[in-house]
Amino acid sequence: MLRVISRQFAGVIDTRTRVSSTKLNTHLRFLNCCSLQTLGRAVCVGRPLHSPDRPESLKKSTTRMSSTDQNPSPSKSVFLKQETLHKEKWLSLERVTYQDPRGKERTWEVVERTTKPKIEGVSDCVAMIAILNRLLHYDCIVLVKQFRPPFKAYTIEFPAGLVDPNESQEEAALRELKEETGYTGTVLAVSPCTALDPGISSASCSFVHVQIDGNDNANDSAVACPEDGEFIEILLIPVNELLHRLQEMAKQKDVVIDSNVYMYASTLTHPHLGMVPSTIINSD
Amino acid sequence: MLRVISRQFAGVIDTRTRVSSTKLNTHLRFLNCCSLQTLGRAVCVGRPLHSPDRPESLKKSTTRMSSTDQNPSPSKSVFLKQETLHKEKWLSLERVTYQDPRGKERTWEVVERTTKPKIEGVSDCVAMIAILNRLLHYDCIVLVKQFRPPFKAYTIEFPAGLVDPNESQEEAALRELKEETGYTGTVLAVSPCTALDPGISSASCSFVHVQIDGNDNANDSAVACPEDGEFIEILLIPVNELLHRLQEMAKQKDVVIDSNVYMYASTLTHPHLGMVPSTIINSD
Repeated sequence: MLRVISRQFAGVIDTRTRVSSTKLNTHLRFLNCCSLQTLGRAVCVGRPLHSPDRPESLKKSTTRMSSTDQNPSPSKSVFLKQETLHKEKWLSLERVTYQDPRGKERTWEVVERTTKPKIEGVSDCVAMIAILNRLLHYDCIVLVKQFRPPFKAYTIEFPAGLVDPNESQEEAALRELKEETGYTGTVLAVSPCTALDPGISSASCSFVHVQIDGNDNANDSAVACPEDGEFIEILLIPVNELLHRLQEMAKQKDVVIDSNVYMYASTLTHPHLGMVPSTIINSD
Repeated sequence: MLRVISRQFAGVIDTRTRVSSTKLNTHLRFLNCCSLQTLGRAVCVGRPLHSPDRPESLKKSTTRMSSTDQNPSPSKSVFLKQETLHKEKWLSLERVTYQDPRGKERTWEVVERTTKPKIEGVSDCVAMIAILNRLLHYDCIVLVKQFRPPFKAYTIEFPAGLVDPNESQEEAALRELKEETGYTGTVLAVSPCTALDPGISSASCSFVHVQIDGNDNANDSAVACPEDGEFIEILLIPVNELLHRLQEMAKQKDVVIDSNVYMYASTLTHPHLGMVPSTIINSD
């Protein structure tokens, strides 16, 4: 019962819940007292569930430190220097030296794109979550399938491309979408600059949500104009079937799904995975 | 009106729709005839919306080719060879030679982890989408914040780690979660092996959904035991606030969000972005 009240209080409407107002009020009072109590040494980071009477000390957002050192102080790492180990036309292998929170000097191997923009916060590339809306069709997501030498296989990815110098992310998104798929779209939203694989590389990407009006004549006769050496198959997949289709494609020996495409599909289909009480055991 | 019928037929219930049964039937007949017609040269990949009377030729899933060559045939690329250009302890810069669909020999620069498993389809690492369920708390996602030398900044990531030899992905997920955060969880689902940044590297990852019972004593007194050199802050963020919190953190100069974490949060919060009729203009 407590859990149901907690969920209800969290804004999840469960019409099957039967709770008397007296019981609810009792538990809401209880909630005011203890909802942000520490769990072990961890404290919930976020707005308090309900905070008017909470002491100041409990409102503070904190985190906990996980370290081999009991009390590393300060919990800060400091970048010291970067050296190029080997540079090719597109990629460069680098060594970064930094100081860990205990003051020890450490090194880390890093790969960088040689084309990386020098401006802070500007991402190397944009990837488009492009939804094609057409009369009498399911809304489809536009994906691309192409041979990717790093995997020696075909990947299923969002249309994507590098941001040119002096180009905004929105401009790059619409230009690359047009080049790779032929479609003309409208930008709905742009993500911040995100890290694609921060354990090994500085490659970054912004995701651009694009809506494509498939009833527009320009899109009805869309013709792609990819760059030399680009051979791209365009996949239009109904959004409500996306996860299932990706899982089927992933079974093929020579096909790999891009992690962000899979994450998008999986979250769309099973948003409540792991959340009580609507846990789903299988992802399929 | 047509669009409304299309959406309704696509299984999206819109209680505001008013359509007479005659009109609906007319359009359903129309739908049977043309819903999988080509759009330009593209054909929808997916199950037909409604297919009992559709000719066999229209049922076939196809894709379209986007290429500088009018008719590259066959539309296949072939891996030829791979050479090491420069190898360090953890990363290796390689050159892959392949044949494009027109038979032309091309090269591609690739970075590989030297620790990459040799078994096909087994991912280098696992990342855990770990949800902490506790009485009287919002369900929280467990994320980690750490200094990442490639970005010279702190990143917000899923807990993650490399899969050891002879270890299953589920075992690696629970071991790494315990090491990095101290939590003991239950695996709910595992994704296929996905590509983190297939344009430049062969790094791959499987996502493991983990549920953590925060009411269990073991998790109440959870203590992390990270490896030497790992300094990790653990963030517990209510899932229903995740996107907003990430967007706030991304504004900090020294913080970068992992792309998969952002994709998860963004899709949870705005699943219908770009889909008619529930388009949302801003991602915030």
